[in-house]
Amino acid sequence: MRLALSLGRRGQGNTWPNPAVGCVIVRDDRIVGRGWTQPGGRPHAETQALAQAGQLAHGATAYVTLEPCAHHGQTPPCASALIEAGVARVVSPIADNDPRVSGQGFAMLRAAGIAVETGLLEAEAAQDHAGFFQRNEQGRPWLTLKLASSFDGRIATASGESQWITGPSARHLVQGQRARHDAVMVGAGTARADDPSLTVRDFTPSRQPVRVIVSRHLDLPLMGQLARTAREVPVWICHGPHPDPLLYDTWAGLGATLLECDLVGRQIDPSSALRQLGKQGLTRVFCEGGGMLAASLLSAGLVDELIGFTAGVALGAEGRPAIGALGLDHLSQAPRFSLAESRVIGNDILHRWVRAHR
Amino acid sequence: MRLALSLGRRGQGNTWPNPAVGCVIVRDDRIVGRGWTQPGGRPHAETQALAQAGQLAHGATAYVTLEPCAHHGQTPPCASALIEAGVARVVSPIADNDPRVSGQGFAMLRAAGIAVETGLLEAEAAQDHAGFFQRNEQGRPWLTLKLASSFDGRIATASGESQWITGPSARHLVQGQRARHDAVMVGAGTARADDPSLTVRDFTPSRQPVRVIVSRHLDLPLMGQLARTAREVPVWICHGPHPDPLLYDTWAGLGATLLECDLVGRQIDPSSALRQLGKQGLTRVFCEGGGMLAASLLSAGLVDELIGFTAGVALGAEGRPAIGALGLDHLSQAPRFSLAESRVIGNDILHRWVRAHR
Repeated sequence: MRLALSLGRRGQGNTWPNPAVGCVIVRDDRIVGRGWTQPGGRPHAETQALAQAGQLAHGATAYVTLEPCAHHGQTPPCASALIEAGVARVVSPIADNDPRVSGQGFAMLRAAGIAVETGLLEAEAAQDHAGFFQRNEQGRPWLTLKLASSFDGRIATASGESQWITGPSARHLVQGQRARHDAVMVGAGTARADDPSLTVRDFTPSRQPVRVIVSRHLDLPLMGQLARTAREVPVWICHGPHPDPLLYDTWAGLGATLLECDLVGRQIDPSSALRQLGKQGLTRVFCEGGGMLAASLLSAGLVDELIGFTAGVALGAEGRPAIGALGLDHLSQAPRFSLAESRVIGNDILHRWVRAHR
Repeated sequence: MRLALSLGRRGQGNTWPNPAVGCVIVRDDRIVGRGWTQPGGRPHAETQALAQAGQLAHGATAYVTLEPCAHHGQTPPCASALIEAGVARVVSPIADNDPRVSGQGFAMLRAAGIAVETGLLEAEAAQDHAGFFQRNEQGRPWLTLKLASSFDGRIATASGESQWITGPSARHLVQGQRARHDAVMVGAGTARADDPSLTVRDFTPSRQPVRVIVSRHLDLPLMGQLARTAREVPVWICHGPHPDPLLYDTWAGLGATLLECDLVGRQIDPSSALRQLGKQGLTRVFCEGGGMLAASLLSAGLVDELIGFTAGVALGAEGRPAIGALGLDHLSQAPRFSLAESRVIGNDILHRWVRAHR
């Protein structure tokens, strides 16, 4: 099952709106088939693994990281494929929460006389499929907020200089993290200040993550990297109501996808933006700031996971804050997270936190 | 030698202005004596260990974490004591840099026919004696700056609420760190805002660290914890020129030690303050902020070691910054540190950095 989970993770960032599943088929203590969801979401992991196993699947055990699908979508149901291949036993940690599948995949297998075991490494599987599950349940993707800052929580000097606070190892790791998400998201301020490309350069992902910019007024640089590459790698812009028609048409003409979002006060409502992204099929979004967008997401309770890279450099109080104003009256109102992991990356530290259960 | 270093560290915070030394005497592969510098700086480690070893010191090897002293101070020189005890071999990682000792302790031993070996675990020994060495060479103590902050580098909410950002395990560890330093130092703003006692409560150190407050105008709460306990645990105040005579007499009357320092601009010159502390004999100072004092020390290049405790809580841009204004024009001017250590402490992370060698 650990191998199946690990194979499944290979698909992360590439399979949306489908889950990234892994499958291992074992017969007589030998692995006879391995598969994971392919880019775009199909073929499914089970199909791949069964094809590899061929006749050896007969009487074998299939380890699948998510309940096999039971409905006829663009591919025939995987539960049927497992039955037809003559698999004797299916081990799967967790049920799908898609109402078209939930429990029915397991039921189909059991009705065909296949032994079904669930619950093995369930927490790990739930974590791997958290984006897929959350979109099914709440209509919004799993949101990871990443902030690379100085020792004192600054993401740039007063003049906006931010290259580089963290070292090359940390930046390389961020490229890998981008590749494992469906989309990379930044606020308009960051898009204007840094003119980032937001693409994955150190790796060659089968799909580049979608680049999402939150910009109420669509006032983004028309000669910048995003504008120039919008036809090669998707650029989606979450904008407010009544955009300037000229800017709207320009960005549409450049190949960007424009998503209209509600406002809360004078800013884009982050819940509305994430619902829009969920509607488009995204399950895992990696937000890289800046401070204003980070604050807006934190205030709305929309940050599922928080990743910090901290460098041993002090920028002082004039530096740009990693997180904008939160408007807290009391410490008890502050968003709290539980430590999930901490590691040394070159001369920086990485610390990962998940939403605290109160 | 590792044991000797570990014994030596027991004295840290208790031996100033003397170094905290450890000594282990080994004969025929058996430990026959162990010692470390006692509170106040004497008896010395060698004296303790030799007393324990008695006749067994004859022909033994003494592991001493610092070159044995060669001068008649308030105690006879340890080099003589080792010679008289008939020790055959002395292993000591590093020479003392006190001009009254440097090299002469080793020379005395060698002249008496004792085999002397140096260099073993020299880096560790240099680190342990860094405060003593720095005071000898530069007249100022080793300065560790500790800041406990939120994920986004804030040490309190806008309203000043800071209890508690980090958890009980981190706070307990800070008590231990205080105990291993000669003094705990804070700025006047922190002394006014938090009314801290700055004492070690979770442990029972043989000496409480001196409490140092940097306050240009001596405008500190007269009914606060520091004022009330100044006769029990030393309070030293680094103040500016021409203090208010009434405040001066009041604090002197309360039992505080008043140290006049130069100004740089309108603030206490941190170099002047540290020189004053060095003159008083301090070798290891643990500064706990606040942001203004931290910035002043960092700007002056006086921070030897930086310790961060980071909690998984976001306070936002209105929160009080861990480090005040540094006045940097470029990222390249920012004070840089090298990562020394990173650990999980409860639900917080500890990260320790040392001055980067450029």
